[in-house]
Amino acid sequence: MSGELVTGLKCRLCGKLYPKEALNFCTDDFGPLEVAYDYEAVGRTFTREAIATRPRNMWRYRELLPVDGEPTVGRHVGGTPLIRADRLAKLLGVAELYIKNDAVNHPSLSFKDRVVAVALSKAVELGFETVGCASTGNLAGSVAANAAAAGLEAYVLIPEGLEQGKVLGATIYGAKVVAVRGNYDHVNRLCSQIAFRYGWGFVNVNLRPFYAEGSKSMGFEIAEELGWRAPDQVVAPMAGGSLIGKLHKSFLELETLGLLNGPVRTKMFGAQATGCNPISNTVKTGAGKVKPVRNPETIAKSLAIGDPADGWFASKLIRETGGWSEDVSDDAIVDNMRLLAETEGVWAETAGGVTLAVARRLIDEGKIDRDGSIVLCITGNGLKTQEALVDHLPRPVVIRPTLEEFEALVEAGVPAVLASA
Amino acid sequence: MSGELVTGLKCRLCGKLYPKEALNFCTDDFGPLEVAYDYEAVGRTFTREAIATRPRNMWRYRELLPVDGEPTVGRHVGGTPLIRADRLAKLLGVAELYIKNDAVNHPSLSFKDRVVAVALSKAVELGFETVGCASTGNLAGSVAANAAAAGLEAYVLIPEGLEQGKVLGATIYGAKVVAVRGNYDHVNRLCSQIAFRYGWGFVNVNLRPFYAEGSKSMGFEIAEELGWRAPDQVVAPMAGGSLIGKLHKSFLELETLGLLNGPVRTKMFGAQATGCNPISNTVKTGAGKVKPVRNPETIAKSLAIGDPADGWFASKLIRETGGWSEDVSDDAIVDNMRLLAETEGVWAETAGGVTLAVARRLIDEGKIDRDGSIVLCITGNGLKTQEALVDHLPRPVVIRPTLEEFEALVEAGVPAVLASA
Repeated sequence: MSGELVTGLKCRLCGKLYPKEALNFCTDDFGPLEVAYDYEAVGRTFTREAIATRPRNMWRYRELLPVDGEPTVGRHVGGTPLIRADRLAKLLGVAELYIKNDAVNHPSLSFKDRVVAVALSKAVELGFETVGCASTGNLAGSVAANAAAAGLEAYVLIPEGLEQGKVLGATIYGAKVVAVRGNYDHVNRLCSQIAFRYGWGFVNVNLRPFYAEGSKSMGFEIAEELGWRAPDQVVAPMAGGSLIGKLHKSFLELETLGLLNGPVRTKMFGAQATGCNPISNTVKTGAGKVKPVRNPETIAKSLAIGDPADGWFASKLIRETGGWSEDVSDDAIVDNMRLLAETEGVWAETAGGVTLAVARRLIDEGKIDRDGSIVLCITGNGLKTQEALVDHLPRPVVIRPTLEEFEALVEAGVPAVLASA
Repeated sequence: MSGELVTGLKCRLCGKLYPKEALNFCTDDFGPLEVAYDYEAVGRTFTREAIATRPRNMWRYRELLPVDGEPTVGRHVGGTPLIRADRLAKLLGVAELYIKNDAVNHPSLSFKDRVVAVALSKAVELGFETVGCASTGNLAGSVAANAAAAGLEAYVLIPEGLEQGKVLGATIYGAKVVAVRGNYDHVNRLCSQIAFRYGWGFVNVNLRPFYAEGSKSMGFEIAEELGWRAPDQVVAPMAGGSLIGKLHKSFLELETLGLLNGPVRTKMFGAQATGCNPISNTVKTGAGKVKPVRNPETIAKSLAIGDPADGWFASKLIRETGGWSEDVSDDAIVDNMRLLAETEGVWAETAGGVTLAVARRLIDEGKIDRDGSIVLCITGNGLKTQEALVDHLPRPVVIRPTLEEFEALVEAGVPAVLASA
């Protein structure tokens, strides 16, 4: 984690190199910028043995996270469980299934804590005192929480009408929360203007190249937990389309550094909701570019990005790795949130229902190999999207505190609630 | 974790020894039973070096958890962050402050996952196929989640009127959730009858001796994270009064086994809400026994146990260690939930507000030493108790997506929300 490991920011279209600054696009062709590393230098200290001695959080992979000094924000993020999901595997008829559970990430219960830890640590290095984000909900809570812990002022912009848990989950930390009349794409455009106008550090605007790298830590953890191998198949939800690309990049980086047992042959599968499916639509139609969705309409609000910044790269990656993409209905989302909870005890937010629903469809269609290993990426917590469930779950039966009433209830059968699988 | 390490269950009053079965009280004097270990045998494999090689979850301390074989339930529980809370410490004028954050515990976001992991692993060993609990909310979610993952049938009994997040957070997993017209003490009595009538494994009734031991893992983690030393002072919330005792026991066990740098001089401080303060009242009045609270009335529903099973032991321990206890108002609870979130980025449930509010009062009164180390135990997540906050937090300002409207807002000042500290 010394400054020399990161050599700069590189345009993903033309390859032009820029210095490590708050900049997210190439001034020649407007291509997105990505962090470039000196892998030879990284390899000198980034060994399995060295990693094994470090605390189990995302910073054990610090040489491949673009912070020059010691991280100052989000030092306890990551290290979430990878669960062998045998009960669900049996039901789905697959051999080797895992759930990566970022629904219990510290501090704000989503994978966004990973990207925010990097972005805000970098923001501190770059001298920003005010930070912000455009968010569909999880990022709002993560920026608010991590900024509070770091003593940074935070502006959090969200589309109007988000779930209560996501709104309270940002205001509780003292962030300045502003709701925008419009959808995420309106919010995002406004944030670009604000970042430019005020010179603030917006994690997913001008700090985006650093921010996006944080997602790699989810992939590093998966590979290490699997005994330093890349899984055969990964299913990840897609909003802006960044996560799925960074997961794959994380496996390739470990391979480049000689840390994996065997080559990376991971097929990447992307999951969306039918009410906002710009990326899965691109994959399925083989279109040459991503057609934005004007009016996203789905209970998976955290995935409701109609014009995804990394949509094209995601669709390209999915096809190149031999993966595929699908999108599912709101009903399927609810059913699969319940199925995940009932079989593996993991209560994911709506995006988790999307991921499982898409995985099941692709298994049924033979696009996901039943004999290969499969990792489902769970990115947020069900407590944040209670609205999606409240009318679908049985309400508790109420009895008086007597054994007789309980016995009568057992006799009649307490409503059993296995979701229609 | 071989069967020989646990020698049996021992009455805390008369010392009579019982076999390792689903039994929670002495048939001679009705004293509570506690798990007894052969510490000499434990010491043979339970060394700092051995522990360091194990995964970072509660089972790295497996020799001191009463499961005979490999744990089968809750294998990923624990390993939650211990956070150095310097921003809050500065505000409180103390030297060394930590937050143990079980609000991000896998799978159900509370310390109850620890006790349930032990109780249900033991339930499987004892051959139970149906399990249950009496709960104020967190235990409900934990039993439901962990039982689902293990394929056990679960009956969850709760008092009527719990927070939505806690009710949904049990039904989502497919548990049979029954609400009881009455308070927790009514629920608890009914569960004793049910466990006896049906022969089911109720985690906090007939499996209670095993269950309670799970809390020790929180203390083991604190001590290991502090470099194998017991903290000078611990502040823990009290409901049934079990956690605070097990935290202290965990330090003493590590000392017995020679694993600590220095003796255990930890002062234990217990936190309650004024609307349900049977234990703090006992400590403060020096009464010879705990006087139950008939009608608990507090927003800290997870602590609303009027007749705490381990209340007397908790009050005795607090006095013997030189600690103290206090209780606080609902307003103070809300203020301190906000303060914790705004300074350290940790959104705790109402019980966390209780813990911080009590800690601050005892620091002000000089009962907690400002120069000694202090650990605050955060036991549950704020997303589960949104009702307590929803009317106390500013709602987001709504603007149209234009830079002009944002500029006008910044000019006027977005509602700043630092809680009255």
